[in-house]
Amino acid sequence: MFDQIPTQRPNTPLLDVVDTPARLRELSEKQLPQLAKELREYLLYTVGQTGGHFGAGLGVVELTVALHYVLNTPDDRLVWDVGHQTYPHKILTGRREQMSSIRQLDGLSGFPKRSESEFDTFGVGHSSTSISAALGMALAAEMTDNQQQTVAVIGDGSMTAGMAFEALNHAAHADTNMMVILNDNNMSISKNVGGLANYFSKIWASKTYCALREGSKRVLTKIPQAWELARKTEEHMKGMVSPGTLFEELGFYYVGPIDGHDLERLVHDIRNMLAIPGPKLLHIITQKGKGFTPAEKDPVGYHALNKIEPKASITPISASGGAEAPAASTIKKPKYQTVFGDWLCDLAEVDPFVLGITPAMCDGSGMVEFAERFPDRFHDVAIAEQHAVTLAAGLACEKFKPVVAIYSTFLQRAYDQLVHDVALQNLDVTFAIDRAGLVGEDGPTHAGAFDISFLRCIPKIIIATPSDENECRQLLFSAYHHPGAAAVRYPRGTGPGAVIELENQHWPIGKGRELRQGKTVCFINFGVLLPDAIAVAEANNYGVCDMRWAKPLDKDLLLNMAEQYDYLVTLEENAVAGGAGAGVMELLAAEGISTPVLPLGLPDEYLDHGKRSQLLQAAGLDRASINQRINQWLSRHNGAAHDSQIHSL
Amino acid sequence: MFDQIPTQRPNTPLLDVVDTPARLRELSEKQLPQLAKELREYLLYTVGQTGGHFGAGLGVVELTVALHYVLNTPDDRLVWDVGHQTYPHKILTGRREQMSSIRQLDGLSGFPKRSESEFDTFGVGHSSTSISAALGMALAAEMTDNQQQTVAVIGDGSMTAGMAFEALNHAAHADTNMMVILNDNNMSISKNVGGLANYFSKIWASKTYCALREGSKRVLTKIPQAWELARKTEEHMKGMVSPGTLFEELGFYYVGPIDGHDLERLVHDIRNMLAIPGPKLLHIITQKGKGFTPAEKDPVGYHALNKIEPKASITPISASGGAEAPAASTIKKPKYQTVFGDWLCDLAEVDPFVLGITPAMCDGSGMVEFAERFPDRFHDVAIAEQHAVTLAAGLACEKFKPVVAIYSTFLQRAYDQLVHDVALQNLDVTFAIDRAGLVGEDGPTHAGAFDISFLRCIPKIIIATPSDENECRQLLFSAYHHPGAAAVRYPRGTGPGAVIELENQHWPIGKGRELRQGKTVCFINFGVLLPDAIAVAEANNYGVCDMRWAKPLDKDLLLNMAEQYDYLVTLEENAVAGGAGAGVMELLAAEGISTPVLPLGLPDEYLDHGKRSQLLQAAGLDRASINQRINQWLSRHNGAAHDSQIHSL
Repeated sequence: MFDQIPTQRPNTPLLDVVDTPARLRELSEKQLPQLAKELREYLLYTVGQTGGHFGAGLGVVELTVALHYVLNTPDDRLVWDVGHQTYPHKILTGRREQMSSIRQLDGLSGFPKRSESEFDTFGVGHSSTSISAALGMALAAEMTDNQQQTVAVIGDGSMTAGMAFEALNHAAHADTNMMVILNDNNMSISKNVGGLANYFSKIWASKTYCALREGSKRVLTKIPQAWELARKTEEHMKGMVSPGTLFEELGFYYVGPIDGHDLERLVHDIRNMLAIPGPKLLHIITQKGKGFTPAEKDPVGYHALNKIEPKASITPISASGGAEAPAASTIKKPKYQTVFGDWLCDLAEVDPFVLGITPAMCDGSGMVEFAERFPDRFHDVAIAEQHAVTLAAGLACEKFKPVVAIYSTFLQRAYDQLVHDVALQNLDVTFAIDRAGLVGEDGPTHAGAFDISFLRCIPKIIIATPSDENECRQLLFSAYHHPGAAAVRYPRGTGPGAVIELENQHWPIGKGRELRQGKTVCFINFGVLLPDAIAVAEANNYGVCDMRWAKPLDKDLLLNMAEQYDYLVTLEENAVAGGAGAGVMELLAAEGISTPVLPLGLPDEYLDHGKRSQLLQAAGLDRASINQRINQWLSRHNGAAHDSQIHSL
Repeated sequence: MFDQIPTQRPNTPLLDVVDTPARLRELSEKQLPQLAKELREYLLYTVGQTGGHFGAGLGVVELTVALHYVLNTPDDRLVWDVGHQTYPHKILTGRREQMSSIRQLDGLSGFPKRSESEFDTFGVGHSSTSISAALGMALAAEMTDNQQQTVAVIGDGSMTAGMAFEALNHAAHADTNMMVILNDNNMSISKNVGGLANYFSKIWASKTYCALREGSKRVLTKIPQAWELARKTEEHMKGMVSPGTLFEELGFYYVGPIDGHDLERLVHDIRNMLAIPGPKLLHIITQKGKGFTPAEKDPVGYHALNKIEPKASITPISASGGAEAPAASTIKKPKYQTVFGDWLCDLAEVDPFVLGITPAMCDGSGMVEFAERFPDRFHDVAIAEQHAVTLAAGLACEKFKPVVAIYSTFLQRAYDQLVHDVALQNLDVTFAIDRAGLVGEDGPTHAGAFDISFLRCIPKIIIATPSDENECRQLLFSAYHHPGAAAVRYPRGTGPGAVIELENQHWPIGKGRELRQGKTVCFINFGVLLPDAIAVAEANNYGVCDMRWAKPLDKDLLLNMAEQYDYLVTLEENAVAGGAGAGVMELLAAEGISTPVLPLGLPDEYLDHGKRSQLLQAAGLDRASINQRINQWLSRHNGAAHDSQIHSL
């Protein structure tokens, strides 16, 4: 048990020799607890140095050791669900010395990544995918008569998502040889929700029963026929609480729950279960933050960590699916998440119909205060994005006005529900789309690079793109009062520090504003890159419009600018393909306006993890790049024969 | 029991007086079986007249009568899952005489539709949404102290989708007062798959047990305290098979399975269960096609029906989530679905790595022959789109080459999985996107209007848009051999009748072809509207390019055409917003080319149901409209002051 994060590299003699899982498998079983201890201490040390997720990793130190010890990785396939927990896995699979680069540009990813290591069998940034992916691998092994084992590790929180259930259902039907390890820490990112959580609690309450049951299982599993007989007998004699009933009903062979920090037990049970063909599920109980006192006491607070600055105290950062970057400025600027949360609370005080809905992102979305002050109007539906959106549609049928707070990247999971259940029926649901644009260290699985594109094609929806904190508040309010589907996209973290006017204003839907008059070129800006547009505009005497809405577009303003200026440059932190800039071109084209438009936004590639500023530069969206790209583009026009005017720049 | 479809309106004296559910509730319980009989006969008659879905409707005649009899609709909320089954509901809720207009332009929708009737509480074209929506309504009732009852009816097939599980999980946690009726006909559109199906089968096998169990329940439910005691006792005494275990484990009060055609039983059990607060589930067993001999014998074949042409025999149409339109021509042209299925079989004969995956659309997607001939390489994963795509990703990790056949509209359910699990990891999965574009009578919930837009923003994916049957085959083959995510979109039904070259050809990725040289205007065509482009081009001496790929675009060809012609017109059966035309504009804009582009495609609105030809006209995409829109657009350019050239047309 550690009380503080080591600031000096700890002494880890056993870990130091484990360069690969093959080397790990040469250790004796008796050495494993020592290895786990060293691994835990090293993990604490490296995350203290770099920042990042570690509560989940601390909880699976023993499981990670046991799995690589029993499995013949990478030939046997180990699929982790949600990458947060894979730091110990990375340390044990040849990346020990690279941990200091984690989540930095060109460094290790914070999640498993196929291109990073052959031990990372599947990239997992979003939850609840592991059973599907592992089932695919297991089916492939069966088709090729490959004797490989396939194991998926999934948390109790991830298990609430429908796709995990879909995969369990299919695996049982196909009777595929695979193992699911349910890592039950009764603590996903936010607190667990749902009948499944109640169900798990019931299982916890019946540990005595389980201990008895498992005791006999351990003996019997060594004699397969006796085991089968006992299993069948046991089914007949099921008691009041049979822990695995739900999974057994679906067709899984269930063992558990067992202590997930008991290495001897883990090695034994995993080994024995792997010897039994077909789909099986081992239910283990672990403690998030295990072995680090402050994290055991506050597992939500210690979901992830900022790196330890010299002489600064340890700073836990809020659980949010991503660690926050330290504030760039000494002035305390509110995060967009706080702007959203405050707005929602202020609104709820005067509007009895507003509701807050989150799919397990209460904290990360800034809804903690709302949840506490208005518990009856707050619904955390667990990791269940599809359900969250259709639930909101159902509530809107009854004249309530739900606000669904969801990260851009997770809204992709509820796309069909948004199209059909909300927009098509013209139901009054507001989407507060968080983490729009680049997210930095969490990398491409958490970036919100596509929402303008995938929303813009949906009829009837309106889409706001605030450029600062006050616009965020006012556009949330304006979108909320639109009687239909409305989305407001805003980024992770802090904005430019605009003064927030607390009085909510009804801003007209689809109206932008001209911010700066200039010559030749006018920026048509959508969202938080506005300061960059203004800086480049001031240096070149360009015009700037802040459009505020990506849909509907301010047609009058656009036609006016297209007439006043020779060139328009659209700017957005969304994919160029189908983004707001494409919308501008569609509008002008339909009107028969030929003013050239340069659409600037995220390129057609996945940007890796790194600091936001580094990623913007890689995307050609820093000020210098923007300026340069415009100049290059203008020179193409000047060189083109069919261009009617030559501009001196 | 009926042996044939009545061709004359049957005599239905009791049904004729039931203009509203309120009137239904004035009947005595003894009259209900007669009403059900008349309702079934009238349903047979009207569907025979109009075509459409009726197998599901025949199965829920008694349930529909019982629900409207016990519930106080529309104040009590009744939410159907998948609209196919709601024809009897429409007949009983004031739309009896309009049934002859069903699925026709300006007529009744084939699905529940909020704008059509206050009894249609929620629009349901896609499956598995009803519990989420009903939970929203039930939570709303609790928040407003409204005493309304809320009932969701969901089929056993729909129950396999993860979002149904998410909603059950949440409803149990919230302990909300609502009722779920599980309509178990062991027969969704295709055959059921998954552990859940096995589970249901086990329940069926234990009917005797259930009969005993239910018998005592019926008596005890009238004395609440005794009932609670008995329930608890029962939990202790659970036998070998306890039918509701899975739902009970989640926290639902379960009754069933009962005979869903026994009106007396239905009325009794629904009434009693509604008196018990909290979440509850009634499991009923029904027979799809009930009461119509041919449909009982072949429920898949009789999922839907073409309308009966005078003197023609009854034509069952394949189950596909949509009835097919009669072939327009007397020459037998293959459907695109057949082109796909044949290609897949031909490929499987020579390529051992190709796999076929469908989320419960084996028949509709044209995979029946593949499933029969290559059962080991065919995976029907049930209604579980999310799982289908990530399963494919897992298989692709092991060097298999999965082909996921999925309707455009259902791919919206697996969008996140496509982005993260397939494209981001650059895994080799081919998507055969069926029902792209307008689908006709099934209406907007089944249209594939957005796929080019929501796919085009995803890095690394390639998207083919074949314009005829042979292009479909060759582009499927070419896309399949691309080592990464690839999509081929093709429409429902038959094409122009192109000669299919059976020898598979490797067509270069991202290369289009010039089909016709002309003057002034050139069509840049994506997909099946090509014959219309050619017709308009011939009438005006325009050029035509068949682009074949929406991503990557054929840059050389586009730059060439932009130089040769004064104007380009893009054409696609996808939303203009963010579609292939937007891609053309993005490319030209980035190159600094100012050739005006008119993007033609689906408008920014949901097109209602109707014949495809009617819908194309409504969308302005019939030949006359295309011609007219181009002329209007050209005249804008001619009138614009900054246009450098005036063209004589």
